[in-house]
Amino acid sequence: MAADAGFSVLTGNSVETRSVRAGDVIFREGAPANELFVIKSGHVRIQVGNKAIAELSADNIFGEMALIDSEPRSATAIAVTDVELVPISEKQFLFLVSQTPYFALKVMRTLAQRLRVMNKGFA
Amino acid sequence: MAADAGFSVLTGNSVETRSVRAGDVIFREGAPANELFVIKSGHVRIQVGNKAIAELSADNIFGEMALIDSEPRSATAIAVTDVELVPISEKQFLFLVSQTPYFALKVMRTLAQRLRVMNKGFA
Repeated sequence: MAADAGFSVLTGNSVETRSVRAGDVIFREGAPANELFVIKSGHVRIQVGNKAIAELSADNIFGEMALIDSEPRSATAIAVTDVELVPISEKQFLFLVSQTPYFALKVMRTLAQRLRVMNKGFA
Repeated sequence: MAADAGFSVLTGNSVETRSVRAGDVIFREGAPANELFVIKSGHVRIQVGNKAIAELSADNIFGEMALIDSEPRSATAIAVTDVELVPISEKQFLFLVSQTPYFALKVMRTLAQRLRVMNKGFA
């Protein structure tokens, strides 16, 4: 099951992207959610309250948790640099999970890696 | 996407189970891994070092992280009561993910819920 956790296949030239300026908030903790994002370029900080819990770069995803469990955003996402994002709607997400098991495994791998980081910080 | 996170469909009467006595270690942090477990009955404590990070009961899964990312066990699992477990091999896990998107979503939901708990403890 070894494979890169990148999602570059979702950031091809023909997909619709969204540009965010450095310093702008992409979404806020507690907000309702209907999409996740793949980072096409730039850096994004994920923070809970005022504490940064991750800084992510190209080919990473974020915002998947609220889509998976239909809860509000669990963290705030802020563009550290100018950022180009590929939004993935809930409908697209469900299609990808059902049609491409490899995508599902990559999302799981992303979540597992974040849990490992949190576990280490917690112990 | 609202649905229970239970895995009771995997703990039917015809499946092979493994019994663990109260107080026994099911697996240890750092050990190699080739299966996850569904709890059929009893309570299991998940701990990192000496810190308990979760206590799980029937229809929950544990041990899925090491299977997802092919890393050693990230935590220790201990039977709090006598426990009956259904082991799921890596091969079965990959089959379930590829054939039943609903299973994949339930695993993701489990991971997302654990991340939310960790995020709250961390902030």
